[in-house]
Amino acid sequence: MATQSSFITSLVTSLIVFLVLWLVYAILSRRPGNAVIYYPLRVLRGEDGPTVAKRRGGAFAWVREAFKAKEDDIVATAGLDAAVYMHLFTAAFQIILISAIFCLPILLSLAGTSNYNQQQRMMDGNFTYTNIDNLGMGNIEPQSSKIWAFMLGMFWVSLATYYVLWKSYRRVVYMRDRANANAAARPQQYTVLVRDIPKPVGKESRTDQIVNFFARVHPGVFSRVQPVHDIKPAGKIFSDREDALRKLEHAEGVWEISKQKGDGAGQRPMHKTGFMGLLGPKVDSIDYWRAKSQEMNPQLEAEQRHTLQEMQQAAAFVIFSDRRSAAEASQVVHAPHALRWRVSQAPEPEEVVWKNLHIPAWQRAIRRGVVAVLTFLLIVFYMIPISFVASLTTLENLEELLPFIRSITRISVLGNIIQAYLPQLALILFLALLPHILILLSRLEGFPAQSQIVRSASAKYFYFVIFNVFLGVTIFGAVFSNLSSFQVLLDQSNLSVSRVVQLLGSKLPPVASYFITYVALRFFVGYGLELSRIIPFIIFHLKRKFKCKTDREVREAWAPGAFKYHKSVASDMLILTITLCYAVIAPLILIFAAAYFGLGWLVMRNQALNVHVPDFESHGSFWPHIHNRVLAALFVAQITAIGYFGIKEFPFSPFLIVLPILTVVFYMFCKKNYYPSIKVVSLYVAADVPKAQPSAESIAHTYTPVPLQEGHPGIVDRRSNLATKIDSTVNAVV
Amino acid sequence: MATQSSFITSLVTSLIVFLVLWLVYAILSRRPGNAVIYYPLRVLRGEDGPTVAKRRGGAFAWVREAFKAKEDDIVATAGLDAAVYMHLFTAAFQIILISAIFCLPILLSLAGTSNYNQQQRMMDGNFTYTNIDNLGMGNIEPQSSKIWAFMLGMFWVSLATYYVLWKSYRRVVYMRDRANANAAARPQQYTVLVRDIPKPVGKESRTDQIVNFFARVHPGVFSRVQPVHDIKPAGKIFSDREDALRKLEHAEGVWEISKQKGDGAGQRPMHKTGFMGLLGPKVDSIDYWRAKSQEMNPQLEAEQRHTLQEMQQAAAFVIFSDRRSAAEASQVVHAPHALRWRVSQAPEPEEVVWKNLHIPAWQRAIRRGVVAVLTFLLIVFYMIPISFVASLTTLENLEELLPFIRSITRISVLGNIIQAYLPQLALILFLALLPHILILLSRLEGFPAQSQIVRSASAKYFYFVIFNVFLGVTIFGAVFSNLSSFQVLLDQSNLSVSRVVQLLGSKLPPVASYFITYVALRFFVGYGLELSRIIPFIIFHLKRKFKCKTDREVREAWAPGAFKYHKSVASDMLILTITLCYAVIAPLILIFAAAYFGLGWLVMRNQALNVHVPDFESHGSFWPHIHNRVLAALFVAQITAIGYFGIKEFPFSPFLIVLPILTVVFYMFCKKNYYPSIKVVSLYVAADVPKAQPSAESIAHTYTPVPLQEGHPGIVDRRSNLATKIDSTVNAVV
Repeated sequence: MATQSSFITSLVTSLIVFLVLWLVYAILSRRPGNAVIYYPLRVLRGEDGPTVAKRRGGAFAWVREAFKAKEDDIVATAGLDAAVYMHLFTAAFQIILISAIFCLPILLSLAGTSNYNQQQRMMDGNFTYTNIDNLGMGNIEPQSSKIWAFMLGMFWVSLATYYVLWKSYRRVVYMRDRANANAAARPQQYTVLVRDIPKPVGKESRTDQIVNFFARVHPGVFSRVQPVHDIKPAGKIFSDREDALRKLEHAEGVWEISKQKGDGAGQRPMHKTGFMGLLGPKVDSIDYWRAKSQEMNPQLEAEQRHTLQEMQQAAAFVIFSDRRSAAEASQVVHAPHALRWRVSQAPEPEEVVWKNLHIPAWQRAIRRGVVAVLTFLLIVFYMIPISFVASLTTLENLEELLPFIRSITRISVLGNIIQAYLPQLALILFLALLPHILILLSRLEGFPAQSQIVRSASAKYFYFVIFNVFLGVTIFGAVFSNLSSFQVLLDQSNLSVSRVVQLLGSKLPPVASYFITYVALRFFVGYGLELSRIIPFIIFHLKRKFKCKTDREVREAWAPGAFKYHKSVASDMLILTITLCYAVIAPLILIFAAAYFGLGWLVMRNQALNVHVPDFESHGSFWPHIHNRVLAALFVAQITAIGYFGIKEFPFSPFLIVLPILTVVFYMFCKKNYYPSIKVVSLYVAADVPKAQPSAESIAHTYTPVPLQEGHPGIVDRRSNLATKIDSTVNAVV
Repeated sequence: MATQSSFITSLVTSLIVFLVLWLVYAILSRRPGNAVIYYPLRVLRGEDGPTVAKRRGGAFAWVREAFKAKEDDIVATAGLDAAVYMHLFTAAFQIILISAIFCLPILLSLAGTSNYNQQQRMMDGNFTYTNIDNLGMGNIEPQSSKIWAFMLGMFWVSLATYYVLWKSYRRVVYMRDRANANAAARPQQYTVLVRDIPKPVGKESRTDQIVNFFARVHPGVFSRVQPVHDIKPAGKIFSDREDALRKLEHAEGVWEISKQKGDGAGQRPMHKTGFMGLLGPKVDSIDYWRAKSQEMNPQLEAEQRHTLQEMQQAAAFVIFSDRRSAAEASQVVHAPHALRWRVSQAPEPEEVVWKNLHIPAWQRAIRRGVVAVLTFLLIVFYMIPISFVASLTTLENLEELLPFIRSITRISVLGNIIQAYLPQLALILFLALLPHILILLSRLEGFPAQSQIVRSASAKYFYFVIFNVFLGVTIFGAVFSNLSSFQVLLDQSNLSVSRVVQLLGSKLPPVASYFITYVALRFFVGYGLELSRIIPFIIFHLKRKFKCKTDREVREAWAPGAFKYHKSVASDMLILTITLCYAVIAPLILIFAAAYFGLGWLVMRNQALNVHVPDFESHGSFWPHIHNRVLAALFVAQITAIGYFGIKEFPFSPFLIVLPILTVVFYMFCKKNYYPSIKVVSLYVAADVPKAQPSAESIAHTYTPVPLQEGHPGIVDRRSNLATKIDSTVNAVV
């Protein structure tokens, strides 16, 4: 029973790691100097870091605070996107809880009192099973009438999912509409993005062309045009100047610090101007960078003038005199050939991807096709290096490769730990590389807004984990053994739908305990790291010690960054997919899944309230993405069940076909009823009159990219413009 | 070579039938008394029938006239829908012509100079072929380099189709936009249809509720609400009264005619009031029906008042002050939950399906699902009775069943004729029943407009003919032999995509000559009947002789009715599907297809200019439907080619996979670029200001169903309200 003991070892070590990390958090977060690591959001919002850190008492304070916080607090502090992300945890937790009410008491006891595994062992000496396997549906005799209860369980889980998703979608639509209606007016509510503007006829300038068009089709409510320019050359000069200004600031900081030592006169920093600062004449850094940055000022001004006059692109922001008209215009076909003058809601100014705006529709379509093919290849062939490394990392292989390891693995506890974690660690390391590639691919697709890029990357990541982790472990059985079984599968030319159903049903149950270990690892270690922020903590202190010389550099060193939705949502959805697939087949997983989403809910709320700063606010546009993937997970679970119930020779298993049909109907209903309210702003909501209204000039200014802004100080804080960001988010949503 | 002689017999007899019918037309149409049969549209537009009939000279006059007519004439006379239907013939003819330029000279000569059929015959004595088969790709040796030319032909045909479809879509969009922009204003342009209005809160009346909602979301441009009522009870009384009024008119007509005979005093008609006019007391018909109709007047008025006050439904027509605002409103999401307050373009008043307006969205979805299932069953199982009858109607079977037939079939010419036509006739007779069922099914789906019902029925009919005629004859090979091969197909559990491709490729070529016969029958006999209008001619003269006593009854007897798009489009599309599939495999079919669409173009233009009266005008909404089905036909042809080229063991046949992908890309492009302009009216077009504008009151009046109209004369002309219809169409489009 080696598997069982490694299973328990894995759980226990995960728990220990988590408790250690919790302890680390409890100790470190109370030290005032660490406030910028553990409460950066509060510090940015103007609270005094040390006071916040001191006020907290006991290791459970954060739990209490996260638990007590209202949804409105989350919206006010972290924005609607974060609140919607929290809602994923709420919804998953609710689904699991309702499922558990039926599955844990009834199905576990039914499975526990059966002994089919034992029977099979008596028939076939090679058959192995663990005590955990005895608590799953595998232990039920085929054709037994007990299977009725499991079938009922499948219906129960499905209905619970529909119910929770339905309530959640309503809630998200409500929150979004409330934010859109009564909130203080925001620039994007008055603005639409126009792309694919045709070439102007004759000598008409682009601006005139756009103004004439909109004055004709939106008489009375059209207010102002803010054309989009090619900012590449101006951006280049701007960032060169920014680089010089940063180096100037750094050199001044170094001088300032040197004054505090010795006689107070300090020592002006020097550097060589040649390759890597190693060659060339030595110069005074402050003088050098000041001169450099100043000589670029007239260059930038000239380039700005040139850009504004000559480099208009086939896109523009059009500003309306009221929110209703902008909302209406963004939903309407403007030109007889609909691929021209394409109008859509303007993204929030901060999340505009300036480089993508001018890409014409046909090119966006081609880019999307190419990226889809690349993503497909990436997903399918990423398995090859993973499985290669994974095959090295099974203990036996490692012992062959590196014989000295044997001395370690002889100690049984250590051997078990390594056996339990090695494959998972290999997987997790490889997965860490991926999100950056996916974000890059999504950016190439030509989306106008950062939030769309993140959503698209998240979708790709979801496909990746489903294919490579979920299907990889189950159907292909290849990731952690070898590629041969995958090849066998591909060689079977008659790969059909019924075959996939059968495969899912037969291959999923045996790996239940593997997935339970996976979930446990993810929540204990993952949330432990997230909560304790060990890595940012170390990086910050290293940077502050050796690199940071100015206030700006320190600020950027502790800047907490935003939630990485494109990574986290897909991972969470993988856990939920696994949970839904096993909820009935191996109900024990519900306990671990509840822990994952329960703990996740607490930790993420803490991070939303205290740590992460949103990069952008898309007003919960993420929810349909999450909703659809939960439904897809449920669909896979239902298909798996059909396969597995068939293997159990249960004569009534065809009844289960109702479930995938129900899922499709529910999907269509939500898409028709709720999705439009996320995609666009309904007229009823947009017709609400705000208290105050921004001027068209101020809106046009927010839609000017930084390199074209006159009188900009010249340095943009890295990892987003934190201070202004917080203010605008808070004002907008409260 | 029995097949070949029956093939030629079939062509020759078809031609003879057509020439006879043409002769009939040439003779009958010149008699002034038949003007209402051959020129009813002109008569209705106020031209003098006899003059029109006389002015025409020679049997070719109609050809000249149909050929010379401009597209604008068609639009002005018969409306945009008819012009778009003519465009189907233009487009198909162009596709075939361009295809023929390559396929006829090159492919025919390549096939004609090969002798694979002969080789096969030498190898296998049972192998049979005809001279016609020698002109197809079947006569090319496998692996021959001649196949390159056929592959090039496939690309040529595909590119020709894309080109013609692209030009056609542009043209249709242009015509539609022109009709929508400059034309005299029509009521539907100012109106939107609102459905799924939620229950009013508290004591608010429905009208107040709708007015308040639209005054909020469309301030300034919202003009008036015309609520929709449940007209069932009022409609019942109205039609009872109409029935009485018609009988009164008829009785007066009878008396009027009787006066002309004998002494001029005439004889007042009498009838019995009991069952079927056979029992009960005898009464004076005129007095009886006058009293009956008058006693219903107060009833109707009371019911009208009651309906207007109490029976408002959850739908309404909302009238705007300008076309732009209505066009904009019809494209926008109005309520936070998008399944409420669903707003769409209002249909033309004449084509509103009043009974469907109140059906809520969820019920429409269910209805659509149920109808889809019913249609599927209908399509699949309609084959069973057809194949049963068809198996009876093969000559051998008939001779067994009815031995006396043998004496006829002994005469070889007659035998050949019967052999050639019997199966087709059985099919055609069965198909005649179907359209009525399909229209009924489509009405049940809950569409608000008659044109949508017709489109939906046409789609169903298309699926039907593709499945039962095209696939029935080719893949299943079952329609005209027996059901066993169909069963064999279903029994093969591993029915996969590649298998379907293979089947299409292998089964299609052998039945080429069957389909050529089918096309010839359809165009010679079908268009002969359409042109000569033999059946309406006979019915009209019978009715006038024995039934019609009043002017109204005569007018209704010759009323020509509209084009039956739901039947004809699907049939035309079947011919085009067959043509595209055989264009390369058996290029000879292009000649017959060119004749079908060329002759069809002439005949249908003649019918559009002189005969049919549109029931409704949907401004060319039919085009996307046609466009998509042409593309689907091309897609099937491309898949077939992949299969057949594979059978010919041509190593480069995988190149053909490019074609279906191209088709999908082209489909997506048209859907994105052109479809929106058909589905909605773009703002740029709607922003055109018309010369004159109807008042909100007059628009509201047109959207009042007849039974609720005050002071209506009481009788609605059957087969649409012809006179007013013509006027409004003409005024609207010119």
